[in-house]
Amino acid sequence: MEKYKEFFKADRFAAHAGVELLEVKPGYARARMLVSKEHLNAGGVCQGGALFTLADLAFAAVANSHDQLTLSINANITFLRSVKEGYVYADAIEVFNHHRIPFIEIKLTDETGELIVVMTSSGYRKK
Amino acid sequence: MEKYKEFFKADRFAAHAGVELLEVKPGYARARMLVSKEHLNAGGVCQGGALFTLADLAFAAVANSHDQLTLSINANITFLRSVKEGYVYADAIEVFNHHRIPFIEIKLTDETGELIVVMTSSGYRKK
Amino acid sequence: MEKYKEFFKADRFAAHAGVELLEVKPGYARARMLVSKEHLNAGGVCQGGALFTLADLAFAAVANSHDQLTLSINANITFLRSVKEGYVYADAIEVFNHHRIPFIEIKLTDETGELIVVMTSSGYRKK
Amino acid sequence: MEKYKEFFKADRFAAHAGVELLEVKPGYARARMLVSKEHLNAGGVCQGGALFTLADLAFAAVANSHDQLTLSINANITFLRSVKEGYVYADAIEVFNHHRIPFIEIKLTDETGELIVVMTSSGYRKK
Repeated sequence: MEKYKEFFKADRFAAHAGVELLEVKPGYARARMLVSKEHLNAGGVCQGGALFTLADLAFAAVANSHDQLTLSINANITFLRSVKEGYVYADAIEVFNHHRIPFIEIKLTDETGELIVVMTSSGYRKK
Repeated sequence: MEKYKEFFKADRFAAHAGVELLEVKPGYARARMLVSKEHLNAGGVCQGGALFTLADLAFAAVANSHDQLTLSINANITFLRSVKEGYVYADAIEVFNHHRIPFIEIKLTDETGELIVVMTSSGYRKK
Repeated sequence: MEKYKEFFKADRFAAHAGVELLEVKPGYARARMLVSKEHLNAGGVCQGGALFTLADLAFAAVANSHDQLTLSINANITFLRSVKEGYVYADAIEVFNHHRIPFIEIKLTDETGELIVVMTSSGYRKK
Repeated sequence: MEKYKEFFKADRFAAHAGVELLEVKPGYARARMLVSKEHLNAGGVCQGGALFTLADLAFAAVANSHDQLTLSINANITFLRSVKEGYVYADAIEVFNHHRIPFIEIKLTDETGELIVVMTSSGYRKK
């Protein structure tokens, strides 16, 4: 766990966005981000890119939880509710631990437990 | 054009990521971002969230190019090549200017013109 | 339930593909399809379009389970395992029952309970 | 070209749906389907699964146009307009001919040239 936390501290863009990795174990990861004024878009709600960054770090943590370098092929993100402040939590589950093309689902919830974003993403494990 | 540039300057997260809106006209928008060390992930390449933020700003600019507030329903992003430095350009085209559910395609290219990301996104126009 | 079953019998393409609607209640639907030689592609496994058709009927059933006409905006389908024969079951859950843009997740499993396809889809409810 | 046409004739589900492969060359494929009453859903328009089947065959043709077996990892399909009758054409372009994970875009148009569906899909080339 600690080695993963150390590794992902090197994700400067995610760190910059305030993303914290809370937990990693094989097949599961949890992260969070405190939404502040720095995360808002021109419409006054948290920018999609900030939410994506949080989800993507959780994806990377779980996809790499088997000690095999895994990249993201693609991601499909759906924005259900907007958020303006407070913590957003990301729970990433590896739905399919394939040796080459794993599939991960990430759900983002706000402090009240309301679902705000669903993302699914396929990874690619290099040999 | 100037009003759009002004409006999108209020996107603090995109500004923070270094995204600049270069052009907006009905049905088309162009933006760019200079990839620096601040954009890298733990693997040493530009974080997916940074590329998403660039693409999302271009989406928002084109989706809102008809003076009608348009939100993002979802986005599907595919990472074709990684990038470590230099400018990345986003060209967003409104493929389908529907009065309620427009559809936009965004292509990201690096300084040599190589395609690095393709994103498609459906918007929702409020009444 | 019976009215929904009757209604979806009018889906000629799905019926033609052998899709049967098993259950519909608000927020949930279940359907199945018996994979036969008629469903195979040139590679000898069930064609993606057949699996999509099954998933799409389950989507339509759950999306329309509130007596309000709902169309599909888009769908994102990931193929995890191939299947050659036997029943494939589709379980569709309305993750977000929004009055305008609901979000549905559909999981396809084979007879042994193995997950073979995950699809997510946003709908659009007309007034 | 003829060998590809022969090969894809073995796609029984697509043949059953009336899909015809019109052209294949490296990086490009074109197919069509005549929408009849057999393709309609309960709402009286062409079922999403029928349109997906057409798009998927065009995907498979172009993805396999380099004599290397390529499977579909996932597909993201957006329904822009409905169609009730007449030919629908699918034009598939291999946007990124990667040796392992190619990326293909498929556009469906009706007889008047109106865009009705956009699909993007990542493939996986086995060794």
